[in-house]
Amino acid sequence: MEKKIRAGIVGYGNLGKGVVSAIGKTPDIELVAVFTRRDPAGIKADNPGLLFLHVDEAFKYEDEIDVMLLCGGSASDLPEQGPHFAQKFNTVDSYDTHAKIPEYFDAVDKTAKPNNNIAIISVGWDPGLFSMNRMLAEAILPEGNEYTFWGKGVSQGHSDAVRRVKGVKDGRQYTIPMDEALQKVREGNNPELTAKEKHLRDCYVVAEDGADKTEIENAIKTMPHYFADYETRVTFISEEEMKANHASMPHGGFVIRSGITGEGSGNKQIYEFSLKLNSNPEFTASVLVAYARAAYRMNREGQAGAKTVFDVPLSHLSLRSPAELRRDLL
Amino acid sequence: MEKKIRAGIVGYGNLGKGVVSAIGKTPDIELVAVFTRRDPAGIKADNPGLLFLHVDEAFKYEDEIDVMLLCGGSASDLPEQGPHFAQKFNTVDSYDTHAKIPEYFDAVDKTAKPNNNIAIISVGWDPGLFSMNRMLAEAILPEGNEYTFWGKGVSQGHSDAVRRVKGVKDGRQYTIPMDEALQKVREGNNPELTAKEKHLRDCYVVAEDGADKTEIENAIKTMPHYFADYETRVTFISEEEMKANHASMPHGGFVIRSGITGEGSGNKQIYEFSLKLNSNPEFTASVLVAYARAAYRMNREGQAGAKTVFDVPLSHLSLRSPAELRRDLL
Repeated sequence: MEKKIRAGIVGYGNLGKGVVSAIGKTPDIELVAVFTRRDPAGIKADNPGLLFLHVDEAFKYEDEIDVMLLCGGSASDLPEQGPHFAQKFNTVDSYDTHAKIPEYFDAVDKTAKPNNNIAIISVGWDPGLFSMNRMLAEAILPEGNEYTFWGKGVSQGHSDAVRRVKGVKDGRQYTIPMDEALQKVREGNNPELTAKEKHLRDCYVVAEDGADKTEIENAIKTMPHYFADYETRVTFISEEEMKANHASMPHGGFVIRSGITGEGSGNKQIYEFSLKLNSNPEFTASVLVAYARAAYRMNREGQAGAKTVFDVPLSHLSLRSPAELRRDLL
Repeated sequence: MEKKIRAGIVGYGNLGKGVVSAIGKTPDIELVAVFTRRDPAGIKADNPGLLFLHVDEAFKYEDEIDVMLLCGGSASDLPEQGPHFAQKFNTVDSYDTHAKIPEYFDAVDKTAKPNNNIAIISVGWDPGLFSMNRMLAEAILPEGNEYTFWGKGVSQGHSDAVRRVKGVKDGRQYTIPMDEALQKVREGNNPELTAKEKHLRDCYVVAEDGADKTEIENAIKTMPHYFADYETRVTFISEEEMKANHASMPHGGFVIRSGITGEGSGNKQIYEFSLKLNSNPEFTASVLVAYARAAYRMNREGQAGAKTVFDVPLSHLSLRSPAELRRDLL
């Protein structure tokens, strides 16, 4: 067997923990260390035997680590960490602020390329697998319409918005795709769908003692941007119910392209990709690990610079050799 | 605008006609000529203005054509045409005899590489998009099970088998995935499924005058390999009904991977890709055209030899520039 790919992790939140676990499920990658901004001595690892080091020590491991998986958030961690770590390591990250991707790509490219490292940015499922399917479906069916639905899944931003309402002790918001809209799209009707027609916003709320539930419900349902333009359901539950039934982090969604081929009125062709995830961070982590393998391989081929999922030949993600892929999976 | 990619087609059956139409829907590719083994003067084109030439003339167009789309069958056309045309052109084809792909790959590589051409083989949806999803899902979720279901769609091989039964004038066989099996897979139950549990075989038969329908039905249902191991439905219809209701070529199917991530009993993660095609040949043709664009681009980058869908970075398939892809589709 070839030498294992030596990986490091930056950040030990839900995503970082998912990466530890995903590395454990693949035989060709070994985890060298987890780097954190916290005091490494104080970290309670789910997995004994993990080496925790302070993030300031990371550059000393330049020769011990082949690829660094950056597991910080997009708001403040990655804009700083992405360009920083690409100076010394091949990297992968899940940067997901869609509007700022071009800017982030340039910032990472600027340090990755002169240092001969590969940095694959915005890996995961959206951006990531969903992006690949949007692109691929459009390239195959140029005459057509694309629809992305999200859910059923927890939206962090909307859950935060619920929790900011006066009288709310805890809140969780699920985004749910509307079945009727999904069906219309799948039948190739090419509907024009408003936000309200595509997604339902389903809120579970723990109220403070003595709070006015009618007021809370009204405040949520009329909140501009977040809820006002949607059909919103509000259900009040106890703190115990919140803990028991709403602790997991499911998510998923659908990318559907409804296209037309052929002459005249043509033939309908429906392309659909979907995910139903019981753990959003663990799945994203699993995608990151597959792209970590690709980052290492592309770098060994002599490539450098920032890359996205659009730039990576799929074979680079697989444990199998190209000949095995052709024989067994083509 | 950049110069258009100049394409040629070899073969003017359903697939070749689909390619003509798909090229018409994309602005960056122009069709130079359709090459055929028939007398070009005798061909009735659906599309006026097409140039038909005899296939023996093709090599004279070496400098006029950037990529040749090979639209022959896998049984006898492509094993000969693939290696032949890769001597002079970049090529794409839809070779789909799964068991012989490694052998075919080697034969095409042997002529493509020394002549500095790219030959992308086995392009379409299975092999093709389904293969990509099988590979990608396995790379992301190494702990899991993969399921491919086909249909609802016409199976040419099974329709031929029906037509060979004594007393059958015409026949059409639809492969239909079993809903119950699909549901079990989608719920992450990882069932072990027999052939019979995965697909139903639905036959429409026009009987010869005076033929014994009971005998025909029995002969079909007990036919080894094709039908004996399946639940098979046989419906007798008139010749007029066959023409009116069974002339189209729908197909499609599902690739589902049911995986587990995380520690302990873990979390279920369901990855699903599906196609619902009203015209199987037109969709396959649309995939071929997108990969023709990629073949041309890879060759311009200096690459040569046989390739598969696993080797092609997705960005090469798109009309959009890498920067546009990052901005608009990532």
